[in-house]
Amino acid sequence: MKQFLDHNFLLSTETARKLYHDYASKLPIIDYHCHINPREIAENRKFDNITQVWLGGDHYKWRLMRANGVDEKYITGDAPDKEKFFKWAETLSKSIGNPVYHWSHLELQRYFDYHGILNKDTAEEVWNLCNEKLADSSLQVKNIIKKSNVEVICTTDDPVDTLEWHEKIAADPDFDVKVYPAWRPDKAMNLEKPEYLDYLNKLESVSGIGIHSFKDLKLALQNRMEYFKKRNCKVSDHALDYIMYEPASDEEIETIFTKRLENKELTQKEILQFKTAFMLFVSEEYHKNDWVLQLHYGAKRDNNTPAYRSLGPDTGYDCINNYAPSAQMADFLNALHSKNALPKTIIYSLNPTDNAAIDSVIGCFQDSTAVGKLQHGSAWWFNDHKEGMIRHMTSLANLGFLASFVGMLTDSRSFLSYPRHEYFRRILCDLFGKWVENGEYPQDYNTLSELVSDISYHNAKRYFNF
Amino acid sequence: MKQFLDHNFLLSTETARKLYHDYASKLPIIDYHCHINPREIAENRKFDNITQVWLGGDHYKWRLMRANGVDEKYITGDAPDKEKFFKWAETLSKSIGNPVYHWSHLELQRYFDYHGILNKDTAEEVWNLCNEKLADSSLQVKNIIKKSNVEVICTTDDPVDTLEWHEKIAADPDFDVKVYPAWRPDKAMNLEKPEYLDYLNKLESVSGIGIHSFKDLKLALQNRMEYFKKRNCKVSDHALDYIMYEPASDEEIETIFTKRLENKELTQKEILQFKTAFMLFVSEEYHKNDWVLQLHYGAKRDNNTPAYRSLGPDTGYDCINNYAPSAQMADFLNALHSKNALPKTIIYSLNPTDNAAIDSVIGCFQDSTAVGKLQHGSAWWFNDHKEGMIRHMTSLANLGFLASFVGMLTDSRSFLSYPRHEYFRRILCDLFGKWVENGEYPQDYNTLSELVSDISYHNAKRYFNF
Amino acid sequence: MKQFLDHNFLLSTETARKLYHDYASKLPIIDYHCHINPREIAENRKFDNITQVWLGGDHYKWRLMRANGVDEKYITGDAPDKEKFFKWAETLSKSIGNPVYHWSHLELQRYFDYHGILNKDTAEEVWNLCNEKLADSSLQVKNIIKKSNVEVICTTDDPVDTLEWHEKIAADPDFDVKVYPAWRPDKAMNLEKPEYLDYLNKLESVSGIGIHSFKDLKLALQNRMEYFKKRNCKVSDHALDYIMYEPASDEEIETIFTKRLENKELTQKEILQFKTAFMLFVSEEYHKNDWVLQLHYGAKRDNNTPAYRSLGPDTGYDCINNYAPSAQMADFLNALHSKNALPKTIIYSLNPTDNAAIDSVIGCFQDSTAVGKLQHGSAWWFNDHKEGMIRHMTSLANLGFLASFVGMLTDSRSFLSYPRHEYFRRILCDLFGKWVENGEYPQDYNTLSELVSDISYHNAKRYFNF
Repeated sequence: MKQFLDHNFLLSTETARKLYHDYASKLPIIDYHCHINPREIAENRKFDNITQVWLGGDHYKWRLMRANGVDEKYITGDAPDKEKFFKWAETLSKSIGNPVYHWSHLELQRYFDYHGILNKDTAEEVWNLCNEKLADSSLQVKNIIKKSNVEVICTTDDPVDTLEWHEKIAADPDFDVKVYPAWRPDKAMNLEKPEYLDYLNKLESVSGIGIHSFKDLKLALQNRMEYFKKRNCKVSDHALDYIMYEPASDEEIETIFTKRLENKELTQKEILQFKTAFMLFVSEEYHKNDWVLQLHYGAKRDNNTPAYRSLGPDTGYDCINNYAPSAQMADFLNALHSKNALPKTIIYSLNPTDNAAIDSVIGCFQDSTAVGKLQHGSAWWFNDHKEGMIRHMTSLANLGFLASFVGMLTDSRSFLSYPRHEYFRRILCDLFGKWVENGEYPQDYNTLSELVSDISYHNAKRYFNF
Repeated sequence: MKQFLDHNFLLSTETARKLYHDYASKLPIIDYHCHINPREIAENRKFDNITQVWLGGDHYKWRLMRANGVDEKYITGDAPDKEKFFKWAETLSKSIGNPVYHWSHLELQRYFDYHGILNKDTAEEVWNLCNEKLADSSLQVKNIIKKSNVEVICTTDDPVDTLEWHEKIAADPDFDVKVYPAWRPDKAMNLEKPEYLDYLNKLESVSGIGIHSFKDLKLALQNRMEYFKKRNCKVSDHALDYIMYEPASDEEIETIFTKRLENKELTQKEILQFKTAFMLFVSEEYHKNDWVLQLHYGAKRDNNTPAYRSLGPDTGYDCINNYAPSAQMADFLNALHSKNALPKTIIYSLNPTDNAAIDSVIGCFQDSTAVGKLQHGSAWWFNDHKEGMIRHMTSLANLGFLASFVGMLTDSRSFLSYPRHEYFRRILCDLFGKWVENGEYPQDYNTLSELVSDISYHNAKRYFNF
Repeated sequence: MKQFLDHNFLLSTETARKLYHDYASKLPIIDYHCHINPREIAENRKFDNITQVWLGGDHYKWRLMRANGVDEKYITGDAPDKEKFFKWAETLSKSIGNPVYHWSHLELQRYFDYHGILNKDTAEEVWNLCNEKLADSSLQVKNIIKKSNVEVICTTDDPVDTLEWHEKIAADPDFDVKVYPAWRPDKAMNLEKPEYLDYLNKLESVSGIGIHSFKDLKLALQNRMEYFKKRNCKVSDHALDYIMYEPASDEEIETIFTKRLENKELTQKEILQFKTAFMLFVSEEYHKNDWVLQLHYGAKRDNNTPAYRSLGPDTGYDCINNYAPSAQMADFLNALHSKNALPKTIIYSLNPTDNAAIDSVIGCFQDSTAVGKLQHGSAWWFNDHKEGMIRHMTSLANLGFLASFVGMLTDSRSFLSYPRHEYFRRILCDLFGKWVENGEYPQDYNTLSELVSDISYHNAKRYFNF
């Protein structure tokens, strides 16, 4: 029997242990997609207590507490931080099988050197220990990042963002971690939203370009892409219901856009046509700029109206949207490829049943312009757990070429999430170890160590040009 | 190598064996959803032979025989019971990997103390042994239930049912198992059926309320809910193609209902609007009454027209319907929640690929009004096997909070099905054992035994207020 | 630790080893569906080098190379065969987890007696060794087939085909392997294609029947079925987007067909109506002729337009189409069954998430007219790997009756693919071994060996009347 979360956590074979400890564990982290706030890096935030770090914005934990029947007061409400922590400790101790159980204990080990189990009996001890350590500068944000062996971080940023915090971070001579912006223009695409025209106003103002047509919008976006590019942006990101393909002529798109400017009602088809045109345009630009296109699809957001009204978005009320025709995904990529304008692309679905479909689609557009040009992104959000990762990597290996996979990202809002890379690497090494020790792949450490190192680190570095 | 179906069946670790034998196996059974006939309990039915018990109404077994090319004569036809049993024995012996193989042998062990293997060579011996035992009062229905350590049974009942048999069972001083009705108003919702108006007549007659509008229908249903409530009903159940959400105004619904009363043709959209309104109404009532809403969706029934004509419904000709937009499921729940009228709800899909979507949806509506208020129901029907249960519980644990799961039900038409609870508990303990012995959860028997006991028994008792 | 691809490859238990070595491995191969060219058998093709055999038409390998960033020149282009082989060796060595890794090494062992690992270091040695052996008559096509213990091969043939090569093979007194045509009339169904009328011309010419109506088309097809039947055809095959059911009257179908003859535009609905009528017609004919209906659905083909223009179809640019309503699949089968005209049918989906739906649908139409009359076809194409097979067989066993499964086929374009039957049989035996040694099925070798032998060989022989 293995002890809980010991040195060989999730490493069930000799091969896995060798691959992890000798190779994977030693490599830096490239966290090419996350949601941390660059301001908190620039200002080198210090946390008052563990509740702030852990429960301040982590909807994974909030959902667990709600499913355990905990009152919202102790989750996002006005209960004292210590009481919230105790409620969390109680919920966590029953969260068997949930990745947050592993993540939390990995964080306690790696950042607080606490090797016990958090539950209601140990909550007081852990509360005191963590808060004591958080008072020290070693757990200020910049030191957390350095201590985690992070080499690159890509945040997630709106085109209207000034990127001032990125500039400040870049200007700090004592902090050599690369913190790059990532371009996420969802608000410029979602013309069905009531706040769309307000958003266009902001975009006009930062770009200095009046937006009276889709053509103008494209100019304004190009202007901002240039701005982002100068600040080292190399990656885009998009949240889509699904990867749609509803083509229309330039004239039709201009008509739709004009209707929107005039606040006229749009049909569902017009909305899809506009979004398709938008996505085709920006993707072509990414191709020109050698940026990577990231497509996150399959989330239906803000499903709990009362909670949305009181707490806003990203508070734990999102779910999987299982409508996602793979035919349109293929047609969208083909439309770009047929113009020789398909950028490097990473596709993530929130629905784990899409794995095989995605793996089959990306295989249709691979070519020698990049190794693994089309990627099936790492198991995302509701799939970000041991089973999800194994399923994702097994499917990618079965249907495609796992060797070119760009690997893990945190997708996190928290500065303590870097052990998720460790978690991923352990699972990767264990998967390889099982294949090897079951006679399905030779125990050839030259190739195996290259594969593990590439997926853990080198592939991402090459792919994104970091 | 483990011996077939021995004391430690499905328990592959020490942890699993301890959890099962010391905790799970000792707890009573709450069978909160099944299809047994309460009359057979009230009358304490005695069975003439094992064919009656096993093959009398079990379409799982019928489907296996048909797939083995057995003539219908030996399945539902007029062959002698003994010949049917022999055909069944032959089919069963080849049913490798099917849960019925395990269920049948568990039943032979638990009720008939037969520990061999049923096949064509042993069929004669088993036939004689079982029939001898069935002749004894110890295997009359009430004794089967008591012997199985059953505490609560919820049957499945139509709103027009008199519930007379439930009353008789409750009045029996020598039988203290709680046998409660469950409210299943499908016939009151399915207005597209030719027999709908006949059904309304019956409902008028039992409720004493004339039904000339949807408003009247609602009154009649409230009247019957009151009747059910007085007879200890605490649970509802619905069979839906999928969880639809097609909202309409009260006026529109009345217009649709009037069209139906006048036998005018309805559009598909009108049918969905009516059903949505129906489901919203009854769900609100359940919320008021603190009843649990059970939603079973994803079955397409009676697909074999010739067989339906000769044998009727529930005879083994149903399949998975894979159209089920999770977006509508979320919108339906949100509509109720936004009115503060969402009852405790259990969602079951016949399609195993819906697991993650359901787990992500229920997480959006959890709150402190109940622990695990929204439930992902136990692996249902075509998923009711080892792999299905592991997949269901793993997904629930990965995406949500398995600790609050209300656990197993038989969903059965047979009185010998209670070992399915044993089967479930063994699988549950084995899952936990594997996690523990792989270092993924601490070997803390205080918490583990609490989790196992809660999921096996206490959660259901609390959740349903039994 | 097991050694890579040794004698007990994929056989992890004693039970599995006994079942494989004592039973499964000894049985002949019935390859009831493949895409090899019968001319190459008739002419007993000899290959100049291993690149011709392996990379000549194998889009599985091409896709791996493209995902590894290899230039198309070395894949389908004009690079010398030796250079192509070296590029392939390099890609293969990194293809961890992909079935091609196993297939390729199995082929090296079984046909070339090479037991090492192919990678860039051994490429020269393997190149020389293989080419030397290929120069010998023992690796001409007929000897490959005999050496592989193949008893029956069904090719895939268009109704307009002369079947001359089948006749020549049948006339060869020194070659007693049965090489039968299979009837694949996709081109006669796909009336939306621009080349449809040209195809009808060909059909007119080979059948001698003028085609001026759907009725005529049916006569022409009957004529060709008779032709195929005389040449031992016993199996049909269809590629469908999904199994559609859009019924229409005979008059409507004639109107649609006339529109097509007149080159008028058809609606999507009309196309589906025509295809439904077509499928109902041919299926009824198969029923009369006791042919097996094979339905392959869920592929979206030729997604990369530039590649399609330069390389044509079947060159590695196909993906999964995830739109496939199981309701229509059930309705289509029911329409045939209701006329007592449902032939033996095998259903394959490219989407692995359809497994349970298919298994539930086929169970609705089983009867005593054949053992396992409705079949869920072996894990197909993107699912043709260890996980895919385990998933397929586990689902079939869980929901149905695995014992009547007709087993494996190569679906291949290559003459070296017969080890895929070995691969399948090892996986089958390992699955059974795991169930047995985990106490889930008795270690009764009488029944187990019968099950394994039936699925490996006898079921197919009986089912197809070979």
